[in-house]
Amino acid sequence: MRKIGILTGGADCPGLNSVIRSVVRKAMQEGFVVTGIKNGWNGLIETDMRVLDLRVTSGILDRGGTILGTSRMVPPLELEKMKIIAENFKRSGADALIAVGGEDTLKIGLDLYKQYGIPVVGVPKSIDNALSGTDYAFGFDTAVNVATECIDRLHTTVESHHHIIVVEVMGRYTGWIALEAGIAGGANIILVPEYPIDIDEVCNILNARHKRGKTFSIIVVSEGAKVKGHSLGHSGPERRTLRRLTNVSELIANLIKKRTQYETRVSVLGYIQRGGTPSAYDRIIGTRFGVRAVELVKENLFGNMVSLHNNKVRYVSIEEAVKKRKAIDKELYDMAKVFSG
Amino acid sequence: MRKIGILTGGADCPGLNSVIRSVVRKAMQEGFVVTGIKNGWNGLIETDMRVLDLRVTSGILDRGGTILGTSRMVPPLELEKMKIIAENFKRSGADALIAVGGEDTLKIGLDLYKQYGIPVVGVPKSIDNALSGTDYAFGFDTAVNVATECIDRLHTTVESHHHIIVVEVMGRYTGWIALEAGIAGGANIILVPEYPIDIDEVCNILNARHKRGKTFSIIVVSEGAKVKGHSLGHSGPERRTLRRLTNVSELIANLIKKRTQYETRVSVLGYIQRGGTPSAYDRIIGTRFGVRAVELVKENLFGNMVSLHNNKVRYVSIEEAVKKRKAIDKELYDMAKVFSG
Amino acid sequence: MRKIGILTGGADCPGLNSVIRSVVRKAMQEGFVVTGIKNGWNGLIETDMRVLDLRVTSGILDRGGTILGTSRMVPPLELEKMKIIAENFKRSGADALIAVGGEDTLKIGLDLYKQYGIPVVGVPKSIDNALSGTDYAFGFDTAVNVATECIDRLHTTVESHHHIIVVEVMGRYTGWIALEAGIAGGANIILVPEYPIDIDEVCNILNARHKRGKTFSIIVVSEGAKVKGHSLGHSGPERRTLRRLTNVSELIANLIKKRTQYETRVSVLGYIQRGGTPSAYDRIIGTRFGVRAVELVKENLFGNMVSLHNNKVRYVSIEEAVKKRKAIDKELYDMAKVFSG
Amino acid sequence: MRKIGILTGGADCPGLNSVIRSVVRKAMQEGFVVTGIKNGWNGLIETDMRVLDLRVTSGILDRGGTILGTSRMVPPLELEKMKIIAENFKRSGADALIAVGGEDTLKIGLDLYKQYGIPVVGVPKSIDNALSGTDYAFGFDTAVNVATECIDRLHTTVESHHHIIVVEVMGRYTGWIALEAGIAGGANIILVPEYPIDIDEVCNILNARHKRGKTFSIIVVSEGAKVKGHSLGHSGPERRTLRRLTNVSELIANLIKKRTQYETRVSVLGYIQRGGTPSAYDRIIGTRFGVRAVELVKENLFGNMVSLHNNKVRYVSIEEAVKKRKAIDKELYDMAKVFSG
Repeated sequence: MRKIGILTGGADCPGLNSVIRSVVRKAMQEGFVVTGIKNGWNGLIETDMRVLDLRVTSGILDRGGTILGTSRMVPPLELEKMKIIAENFKRSGADALIAVGGEDTLKIGLDLYKQYGIPVVGVPKSIDNALSGTDYAFGFDTAVNVATECIDRLHTTVESHHHIIVVEVMGRYTGWIALEAGIAGGANIILVPEYPIDIDEVCNILNARHKRGKTFSIIVVSEGAKVKGHSLGHSGPERRTLRRLTNVSELIANLIKKRTQYETRVSVLGYIQRGGTPSAYDRIIGTRFGVRAVELVKENLFGNMVSLHNNKVRYVSIEEAVKKRKAIDKELYDMAKVFSG
Repeated sequence: MRKIGILTGGADCPGLNSVIRSVVRKAMQEGFVVTGIKNGWNGLIETDMRVLDLRVTSGILDRGGTILGTSRMVPPLELEKMKIIAENFKRSGADALIAVGGEDTLKIGLDLYKQYGIPVVGVPKSIDNALSGTDYAFGFDTAVNVATECIDRLHTTVESHHHIIVVEVMGRYTGWIALEAGIAGGANIILVPEYPIDIDEVCNILNARHKRGKTFSIIVVSEGAKVKGHSLGHSGPERRTLRRLTNVSELIANLIKKRTQYETRVSVLGYIQRGGTPSAYDRIIGTRFGVRAVELVKENLFGNMVSLHNNKVRYVSIEEAVKKRKAIDKELYDMAKVFSG
Repeated sequence: MRKIGILTGGADCPGLNSVIRSVVRKAMQEGFVVTGIKNGWNGLIETDMRVLDLRVTSGILDRGGTILGTSRMVPPLELEKMKIIAENFKRSGADALIAVGGEDTLKIGLDLYKQYGIPVVGVPKSIDNALSGTDYAFGFDTAVNVATECIDRLHTTVESHHHIIVVEVMGRYTGWIALEAGIAGGANIILVPEYPIDIDEVCNILNARHKRGKTFSIIVVSEGAKVKGHSLGHSGPERRTLRRLTNVSELIANLIKKRTQYETRVSVLGYIQRGGTPSAYDRIIGTRFGVRAVELVKENLFGNMVSLHNNKVRYVSIEEAVKKRKAIDKELYDMAKVFSG
Repeated sequence: MRKIGILTGGADCPGLNSVIRSVVRKAMQEGFVVTGIKNGWNGLIETDMRVLDLRVTSGILDRGGTILGTSRMVPPLELEKMKIIAENFKRSGADALIAVGGEDTLKIGLDLYKQYGIPVVGVPKSIDNALSGTDYAFGFDTAVNVATECIDRLHTTVESHHHIIVVEVMGRYTGWIALEAGIAGGANIILVPEYPIDIDEVCNILNARHKRGKTFSIIVVSEGAKVKGHSLGHSGPERRTLRRLTNVSELIANLIKKRTQYETRVSVLGYIQRGGTPSAYDRIIGTRFGVRAVELVKENLFGNMVSLHNNKVRYVSIEEAVKKRKAIDKELYDMAKVFSG
């Protein structure tokens, strides 16, 4: 009987368990045995694995996280590690490896495929929607919904107190979560890594709102956004007073407070954006990706990852898929400014 | 100053208020005044309108329903009504009419445009994803999330009691909600209007599950699905005992119970699927559609409705858009069967 | 090593798993082994049991339902069954039995304690708050929150459509869920089993609302409420047209429609009220009850059930506790009428 | 016609709008006019008021925050301010003042009653359950549910990553939220202001968990908890490396990391705990309190606040009620340790 290994790598993401369950179901119907590799690539280094069957994967569709555990590894891996992984994989007797993860996990998978001939199929996750090569990778829809729900909660508070709140959401390199949760949450200002922040412009908008009687404002900012003329390394002109700031949201709140005297508050949403039960859409995409990944294995289409195009699940070469990040849609970003006033 | 009239028609849908807010914001920036027409086309028959400004539309982004109210009207309308509507619209002094609604509302809008020259722009809503002509119309994502959350809740109950539950969701002509909420909720069997139901086949699947120790099952069915050999008109072979049934879910539960002796339960989700706060995605699409609708007015692109294509907001002629319903994706439907066992 | 058996009986209820987890944790610290009895009293008839340890009960605190399964049995049980249960319990080698359930489960436990000397400790659940003998039994808080959330969702729909909606909630003998969810959901009329419904009075309130421009209304009714002059057995004056009605909500909606001509709608919430993740309070009470139940075992305080008094967990004799149902608080019921207008 | 003034003071809290709506409803039935005072005591300093009627308070029951706005003022107020408030209140023509708020708001109300004869009735809110004098003050139940939901989300993440997470919740002087959300969320360690934290003891528990294979842990800490031997003023032994820390959660995470080498993460829940739609219970208590407050006005029972005793709404003198804080229940705190292992 043929055997498939599966691992989940990188930061956890709602929908990982949907993929695992779906791979097991489909694989068993196709006559494969499935081995779960624990904690990402680490499980192949430490040969930590266990068989996955219907019982183990029952009831996990609506659970966040990953029952396999995960770990973070940044490519390229050291030669020594690569060799161990390749060797242990071969020893495991598996005929294919399904690697579920983001850019880093997929790149390591690609290296293993190209340099060691490991028969890898990728399944893309991306909580911040940063992956190109697919219209969508699961996790993002849940993150946007959680962030939006939080902004809704903050809305009533800042409105009651006439405050300005700076809400920091995930997004180190791309501003998708800030943009979508900002629009959905009714943010007045949305700040993203793709466009450096001009604090004077931000203050102008806030002042204009106050002039027309709007005594509260909501600013949504990606964790990776940069403020022009300031760095969180804290060597800028306002270095002394700001040296204890570690988040861009705190930096922005302080700068606004200084320039406008308005009361500002900060809320860093952090890990709650990636945990918990996946949205319906992320469960569906995870499920569809898992089924298709097994089909790719069956058809020996290695070196590829499953992908979504026009709402159809297809596949692309991993190499193509990880070439560049998907920046936010400029058209959507500009539209959001309609609600700045 | 130019004036835009806006109305919401047909069944209410999460995201309607997002459109209204967005239209008002964008319109004011473009120098339009906006008049809200109450209760769909009725508001033009009874000339029930009021000016919409920033204050009235503040804080409604996250509210279900429609602050304008709505009513259901089935096209084609009587000649008399059409004349009154056309006349009252002209008297209102509005330069354009934004009609937000589903198939029925849009068809009436199209008739007014073609026969009376009313400058109509359409904004599509579709809680059951039945509209072709656009990749997506808002409302559906919220409905799927609500239905999935309900199935999650029912899951723990039927598992504890070893029951078979038949969950009835919206979808008179298309099975999209059943299909997506079924996949997301981990349903074992999904029944849709597009494919008549063979009860023996359903019972075979249930029996197979019981044989492998799965003593509970979840069946998700669209309200509009049909059972082969039975009708809810109740003239079929089992007419006598079934004559009090009004829902397809009850019919199915009774037939299963008779054939298999398993304990069955029914849950008709009903109106809760369409009410309440919209999902992030529906708020975003509603917002984008509203902004674009005002742009169509500005560009005199009447007779069209805004639409989504590859995640870009564009437009299509209403005539094209309402020609046929969008049946469920056969590929997705077949995939869902992987989880029947 | 001493051994505790635990079972969950009757309808499932959010918080059952909190009790199970808590019993296992506390029992292990006290040096007990715990045996889980499957499907309520049935597990003792069919000797279906398994050892419960930390691993099995890990991650269940936030899960609805019961990992032990459950079944419904109505006391008094046949002599034969009682004997088998008592015998099998003794054979199991357990030193005590923790029975988690409502009135029926507790009464059977009491009979076993009194007639067969089985060392029983009870843990009360009550989704409809019907148990006297304790200030609170878990399940109710979750049910009220779910019902309230559903009423919130329905609110926006009926407001947009100018409908009257009759929402049917759980409560066969007591109106607690209707009363609390009705107040929390802003219901205009609340109908409970404790007070027979006068339809004319209901219609008067609806008419008064319409007169002051409120074109929608929300009525919340317990499933067990009765309408004066009508029965669901359908022998009343409106028998012919109503013969297909099975729910009190449909009966009420039809009667209102006839008398007032207002559009009415019905929503039967059903099983979703009892499923799914427990509220924080139900998890806490379940956890506290589980710990205390093990202490009662340790102290040989059999024939008692744990209970809540002034937010302290204490115990009462099962006999006292199941003597009568807890009717709704008249003071609270009268207060709710402030919002009828 | 007699007139009631109402204000909401201090930090916003879920349930404030329930009180406002309820006061207006009941007051109108009793023949009072209601004046809403804006932004707490500030509204009486700046005479910023407006009439509240059924229309303004319609649809606010499920909204977080307060439609009246709020502001924070710490008693005792300066003599000058007190005089202005008393004078402006008398000028407003109101016959009574309903002050809704926590300790600070109620103390100012008490001063006005005693020193200036203002006919004040208090309504207690307390998001951190710190008020004695009443079994419960609204806001807390919502906060505990939100915090629990967040811990659920974090749970799946830390489990997948084998991390230790320190979740910081509200509670400057009392640990109620940490205690209840900790129990409900399955926290392994709960740290509260009432008991100084011994980091070595914390590390011992974490080490014990690791030894039995539990590679993740959840610590819930109140914002006001103190670590023995360390202060956030940062003059302790580890001053140098810790000088940029501002939250107790970061301090704890750093200390654990140093001593155990385990990976630690921090999540500060912050404002989301107090915003958003109130839980059913908080809506009910808010509603009951509002009705009773108007009754107190009617009965001239000034200088008192409404309160809950054995689930009945009664009243106590404000003086008694604000005398001391309500520390956490030692019995409950000790019980929670069952789950530390």
